[in-house]
Amino acid sequence: MEKPIAFIRGIPPVESFPKEKLVECARTAILNHGDLILQYAGAAGYDPLREWIADRHQVGMDSVTLGQGSLQLLDFFIHSCLKPGDLIYIEQPTYDRTLTLFKRAGMQLKGFNLKHGKIDLDEVENSLREGAVPKAFYVIPDFQNPSGACMPLKLRQRLLDLARQYDFLVIEDGPYRHLRYSGAPEPTFFEQNQDHVMHMSSFSKMISPGLRVGYIAAPEMITSSIRQYAEDSSINSSYLNQAMIFEFIRNGWLENHIKSLLALYGFRLNTMLETLTTYIGDKGEWLEPQGGFFVGLTLKESEHVPDEQTCKTGGITLSNSKGFYINGGDKFLRLPFCALTPLEIQTGIQRLAAII
Amino acid sequence: MEKPIAFIRGIPPVESFPKEKLVECARTAILNHGDLILQYAGAAGYDPLREWIADRHQVGMDSVTLGQGSLQLLDFFIHSCLKPGDLIYIEQPTYDRTLTLFKRAGMQLKGFNLKHGKIDLDEVENSLREGAVPKAFYVIPDFQNPSGACMPLKLRQRLLDLARQYDFLVIEDGPYRHLRYSGAPEPTFFEQNQDHVMHMSSFSKMISPGLRVGYIAAPEMITSSIRQYAEDSSINSSYLNQAMIFEFIRNGWLENHIKSLLALYGFRLNTMLETLTTYIGDKGEWLEPQGGFFVGLTLKESEHVPDEQTCKTGGITLSNSKGFYINGGDKFLRLPFCALTPLEIQTGIQRLAAII
Repeated sequence: MEKPIAFIRGIPPVESFPKEKLVECARTAILNHGDLILQYAGAAGYDPLREWIADRHQVGMDSVTLGQGSLQLLDFFIHSCLKPGDLIYIEQPTYDRTLTLFKRAGMQLKGFNLKHGKIDLDEVENSLREGAVPKAFYVIPDFQNPSGACMPLKLRQRLLDLARQYDFLVIEDGPYRHLRYSGAPEPTFFEQNQDHVMHMSSFSKMISPGLRVGYIAAPEMITSSIRQYAEDSSINSSYLNQAMIFEFIRNGWLENHIKSLLALYGFRLNTMLETLTTYIGDKGEWLEPQGGFFVGLTLKESEHVPDEQTCKTGGITLSNSKGFYINGGDKFLRLPFCALTPLEIQTGIQRLAAII
Repeated sequence: MEKPIAFIRGIPPVESFPKEKLVECARTAILNHGDLILQYAGAAGYDPLREWIADRHQVGMDSVTLGQGSLQLLDFFIHSCLKPGDLIYIEQPTYDRTLTLFKRAGMQLKGFNLKHGKIDLDEVENSLREGAVPKAFYVIPDFQNPSGACMPLKLRQRLLDLARQYDFLVIEDGPYRHLRYSGAPEPTFFEQNQDHVMHMSSFSKMISPGLRVGYIAAPEMITSSIRQYAEDSSINSSYLNQAMIFEFIRNGWLENHIKSLLALYGFRLNTMLETLTTYIGDKGEWLEPQGGFFVGLTLKESEHVPDEQTCKTGGITLSNSKGFYINGGDKFLRLPFCALTPLEIQTGIQRLAAII
């Protein structure tokens, strides 16, 4: 058997990394700004990049904090603004690493199932009415990890209304937002409301995950708590990496780079969807995402989900789907497609079809 | 009044940053190893650097974990290996940021005062005999922050004997160890015992703090807990920065770079000590450190310590000394010297002498 085809993590393909350009960014950053970026620095992050992000989100710079990935900043938020036992709402399935962070910090979690890619806001409203008001609702509205769903505008608006009415925070995780291969974008939660929303994003999917540059845009009360916690935890994240991202943007390279990603990934998504239709057909259901990194496949029967040994023999690897759920997930498979060539996608889905 | 002279943080001078060499390191790292370092990666850190550190400490690679500074790794250790209420012994005074981390996590702290730069191990042994056995004793044996003290070999050996006998961990924080301007080094705790010691260090003082590359070397049970906690917290720290450090070392640049730091800082330390003798004289006491970043000055009377306003008028800035103590610190001043020119040191100490 050849090398297994990995449907595991949402990683970009190495051929997408703009190495020569990043060398140039590192050179400029170190030679022109070395006194700042090679020294200890403030926990909020490299100001020119913060400013660029703040402009993009039409907020002041104090609303933006950079970190070693947005997951780290979420962890800082949990530690500095929440306490064990606090209630958090989540979509179900959701990003497994976020679930791990919430659980690790002793949060009480309540999941709302995605049905055909949508949470049922009547169900959410009932829960709120019954008094189970959360501190925050964690959502990934654009090309959700792991389902690929995009939240319609009306749902966004109604969820924001509920956030206002019951005074909870919407944590909007948006790393895939700019990777839209078709269709038109919906406004972010943060565009619509800056008092009840914390927007998380990063350059991991747009430039390189290894640079570890993520950010949050949020009410200043939140960013200042996160900043103090960040400083106490590790003084500051690396400004070199943040300055490299800024140089990449300043050189005008981001837009074209994203365009090239859209072409590369869009074709891979289409291949994935066509192959699923051909080989999986009515053995499962899936949404047709217009962007992002994942197609979520729900099989008709849980006994169709192959175990680890069957996958190994069959020549593929899969994530543990239970990680995306508080409980459940026994019919679900997450299929990332960006880091696989069209041929690998076709072969991988054929292999999957053979063992379900 | 001219710009105040800052006796605040232990930072290296910007003129020490090897910018051109670091540009070359970034170039080689990205072009030759970009597929690895620009991608998501394992939480333990960039293997070639881990291996180099492991060799240096004569341990296996699994005993070494890299992070975004050693403070971050200490925080991960606290969260993954300790629990609120655990007893921790510290030297007093000690590094203020470590104290903050221990306090934040709800540790119970017991301080042992440095007398002429030495803790009294009879006092420690009495405390252990009385049943107050800590989970860990945090020490900075080489050029202690903030006192400048170096722990004599006999004390190291006896403290290790106590650690074995009462089964607690010695946390050895060693970022200044390689910055010795005179005298001969004592063996580290970690060289003498690898079961009861966690050694922390970093490249912040040897190359650049802004790169945010620190490490721990410790029993594998500890490093594996830290690694899992690190992965859950932020997946991995930036391999680019770690690979740049490795390229710097691989090019054979570290040894000469440290030599140039020793010359630069050694002269500044001598200037500091001579100026203290001339201007402070018998108004205070201080050790004569053989390395590191700090001279700790203890004034005869607490009323001699200038308040913030007096400092401002007098043209200097000082750290809040209370941060180095659980309680106390009212006669103590930490005087960092590496980032100040000899003239600034002379002027600063003259100004200090005028207001105490």
